[in-house]
Amino acid sequence: MTSQIDKLIYLLAKVPGVGPRSARRAALHLLNYREQLMIPLAEELKKSALVIQKCQICNNIDDQSPCLICSNPKRDQKTICVVETISDLWAIERAGIFSGGYHVLGGTLSATQGRSPEALNLNILVSRVKTDQVEEVIIATNATMDGQTTAFYITEFLGDETNVRTTRLAYGIPVGGELDYLDDSTLEAALFSRKDF
Amino acid sequence: MTSQIDKLIYLLAKVPGVGPRSARRAALHLLNYREQLMIPLAEELKKSALVIQKCQICNNIDDQSPCLICSNPKRDQKTICVVETISDLWAIERAGIFSGGYHVLGGTLSATQGRSPEALNLNILVSRVKTDQVEEVIIATNATMDGQTTAFYITEFLGDETNVRTTRLAYGIPVGGELDYLDDSTLEAALFSRKDF
Repeated sequence: MTSQIDKLIYLLAKVPGVGPRSARRAALHLLNYREQLMIPLAEELKKSALVIQKCQICNNIDDQSPCLICSNPKRDQKTICVVETISDLWAIERAGIFSGGYHVLGGTLSATQGRSPEALNLNILVSRVKTDQVEEVIIATNATMDGQTTAFYITEFLGDETNVRTTRLAYGIPVGGELDYLDDSTLEAALFSRKDF
Repeated sequence: MTSQIDKLIYLLAKVPGVGPRSARRAALHLLNYREQLMIPLAEELKKSALVIQKCQICNNIDDQSPCLICSNPKRDQKTICVVETISDLWAIERAGIFSGGYHVLGGTLSATQGRSPEALNLNILVSRVKTDQVEEVIIATNATMDGQTTAFYITEFLGDETNVRTTRLAYGIPVGGELDYLDDSTLEAALFSRKDF
């Protein structure tokens, strides 16, 4: 017979970032704060599982579809930023540096993980570009091998299907970065893309 | 208006060991595994909050009171191990090295945190010692200043109220420990308590 605490710890330990040890600590903490934290968390988990859905336009997640970003009239839907994951979308939103729309790929092309172009929902992107007269697609995939392959593929695909301008994020030294700690490729990219004062 | 995801992340980030960053990651993971993880976790949290309770004998937590340890006839209730916290009890249980009963103090005496002897539930311990004819109380508080002060206090208290034998865990080199990395106090304790081959 498994006790209720063991069941709870078992499930808590499955949450990413929580190992068996922190699951035990978390269980004890939650039991000490039942009214303030444990029951509210249970309720928000259940409610979230029910209401949070994918946005049919951009593939973001929200309480509603279209999501708050796609349905916000103040955002410039003529510029679309293509990101790999919802975490990437959140990172850009937290920075507060972009007021256009998004397209969340849900991953990259990957031969090893068997992810093919169909998985990127590019047809939806193409139809948005056409119907909304999108002027620029900023491809903000990660600077990894898979991310760059995907960026290249999307650029080609959009070029075949539309006349939209595609751009990518700049490579260079991270702000606050020290040359001594940078890898050679970044240094090379930063030198290559140098700018006049 | 706060979105449902923000509410979820806010509560997840309050779980110990989960910061804002891992809360976001956890939220996305949970949303990807709604049926397998998110809803079961919500249900176990709610159920645990309802059924898990303190054992009235030893102060452990379990689905029932007396807890499974106190109500297990195979365990030798004539030896009681006094621990600071439920985590400590779990650590000893995981090691599978002890088959007596426990008394969970719920903390140590602490002048800075204003925890006084009344908080340790020692009257319950004394009445157990008397009614169950307990033969030995092993004081397994931590080897910290507060833990040792508490151990000393409990020994005195039990000595005044009962005739029970009180013992404490041995100090020494941790198994697998290297002398070079040990602190001076541990080395001194290990030397002082040296044994014949």
